[in-house]
Amino acid sequence: MQGPPLGIDLGGTKMLALCIEEGHTAGAESTVASPRSGSELVDAVAAASAALCGGNPRAIGIGVPGLVDPSGTVRFAPNLLGISGTSLLDALARRFPSASLWVGNDATAACWAEHTLGAGAGSAEVLLVTLGTGIGGGIVSGGVLVEGVHRFAGEIGHMVVDPSGPPCPCGRNGCWERFASGAALGVLGRQAAAGGSARRVLELAGGDPAAVCGEHVTAAALEGDGSAAKIMDRFGWWVALGLANLANTLDPEMIVIGGGLVSAGEALMGPVRRWFSGMVEAADTRDRTRLLLATLGPKAGAIGAGLLARNAEGRPAPFR
Amino acid sequence: MQGPPLGIDLGGTKMLALCIEEGHTAGAESTVASPRSGSELVDAVAAASAALCGGNPRAIGIGVPGLVDPSGTVRFAPNLLGISGTSLLDALARRFPSASLWVGNDATAACWAEHTLGAGAGSAEVLLVTLGTGIGGGIVSGGVLVEGVHRFAGEIGHMVVDPSGPPCPCGRNGCWERFASGAALGVLGRQAAAGGSARRVLELAGGDPAAVCGEHVTAAALEGDGSAAKIMDRFGWWVALGLANLANTLDPEMIVIGGGLVSAGEALMGPVRRWFSGMVEAADTRDRTRLLLATLGPKAGAIGAGLLARNAEGRPAPFR
Repeated sequence: MQGPPLGIDLGGTKMLALCIEEGHTAGAESTVASPRSGSELVDAVAAASAALCGGNPRAIGIGVPGLVDPSGTVRFAPNLLGISGTSLLDALARRFPSASLWVGNDATAACWAEHTLGAGAGSAEVLLVTLGTGIGGGIVSGGVLVEGVHRFAGEIGHMVVDPSGPPCPCGRNGCWERFASGAALGVLGRQAAAGGSARRVLELAGGDPAAVCGEHVTAAALEGDGSAAKIMDRFGWWVALGLANLANTLDPEMIVIGGGLVSAGEALMGPVRRWFSGMVEAADTRDRTRLLLATLGPKAGAIGAGLLARNAEGRPAPFR
Repeated sequence: MQGPPLGIDLGGTKMLALCIEEGHTAGAESTVASPRSGSELVDAVAAASAALCGGNPRAIGIGVPGLVDPSGTVRFAPNLLGISGTSLLDALARRFPSASLWVGNDATAACWAEHTLGAGAGSAEVLLVTLGTGIGGGIVSGGVLVEGVHRFAGEIGHMVVDPSGPPCPCGRNGCWERFASGAALGVLGRQAAAGGSARRVLELAGGDPAAVCGEHVTAAALEGDGSAAKIMDRFGWWVALGLANLANTLDPEMIVIGGGLVSAGEALMGPVRRWFSGMVEAADTRDRTRLLLATLGPKAGAIGAGLLARNAEGRPAPFR
């Protein structure tokens, strides 16, 4: 008898594995340091499977922080160079021949989870935008994932919104994630602290302007600090600009904001909602567009990967 | 007995109607001045139906230059203010109770035509980008249209790519169509002509820098004029920037370029392809992305609308 599905979120430093219980709730979980190669990863999956799902899960899904192609090969994973180029789906299929499998992008998996169980439940038109160190995205339209021909859709953080903006590690200038990620909020915070206009933010960072990061800004804003709220307003303008570009392109019913910046809550969403409504085309006819915070937190990617693997049951692996 | 489907492309000045023959080819057609109200439009459709399809078409589709909601109501059509607010699908259903109907955005219809019969045939992941006076877009993913919750998807011309750029009639600054439309090419041409660096372009415009428009630039470039080629190179950079943003978001297999600028052919596509390949994320792993010229020309919208109405057969009208 096979055990419940296993969902895995592979991060740059940690790997979260969890068991998907009946009713799609997240059950037992484990966290280990991220494996550094494809074979280490398969071993870690086997260990998690034994510990959480009786060693024989009916389905295994893995969300990867990078680009995964239709054959389940990791094509580009800058934070996990050891698994770049690995045919992860093939390796899993050899070790778990009777499990249905899904290997794909982590934000895609998180989007599926939020669409199925989270903030986007009940809508067939959901865009997930994860605001963390960088920006990731996942798209559901017509109730199905939009993954694109190479399965690389959702690389929204590298939408250029100002060609004369700061350089991005991707090689271009002015990518959206240079303005609207947690890293970008840290830049705004350091600028304000160095300029003497963010006393509380500076205090929270221990008095060193160079130590200010995004978390100090959101913490001060959540305390009600006015100068931090000003930074959040400017930051929210950039977030809203990219969201409006995406709303103009995709017209989702729900834009679900996930990632680490979710902890800023209304200190983030207030400014974003205010700016967004003036930025989207024909805003007064878009009564159904909603901006929402993700509800599944850091488990979304693992849950979504497990659910997608479960959905793949009965299809040959590699299933696409 | 019902006649063949009738496809209509409603432009800002002209209305093209055509009959869709067996095998999906475009048959008899007519062009009249665009009707100025919903009731005039229904009369014009009836006249075209009588002239082209025996008065009783099995299906009628209309592509509209604006935003059409799921009920078939035109919500925003800046170039056809007389039909804004009209429940076009309802009005057609009353006049043609036995025809299956489709009313939607003109670029969406053109995208469906190019996907079904044109440059995008054979691909399930097609993005159509129309470069004309403005920029429009249509999206096919997984072989179906991505229209969004209000059916407003594809408003890609209003993707902001430089917030300090020129003002757009939409109320914002630096929308992509301020840099990459036919109108924007005209601006580049006038600047070059006024600066004395585009002699042949200026000649073609009759010697008046203020009379230069996009067509003069493309005509000179097609003749092999070097200074016009320089303008096309800069223009192609902006086109490519937006296409790369969209490729990062949607990962289409084919980006089909339609609209008036198609007449520039390789004078446009050469620079666009050159710049694009360096702008898209992880370009060296995107071997399947192709940039193509549309093949159906100005009939694409009418053909697509007729095909979409044909596809709606058997569904109650309003069918969505």
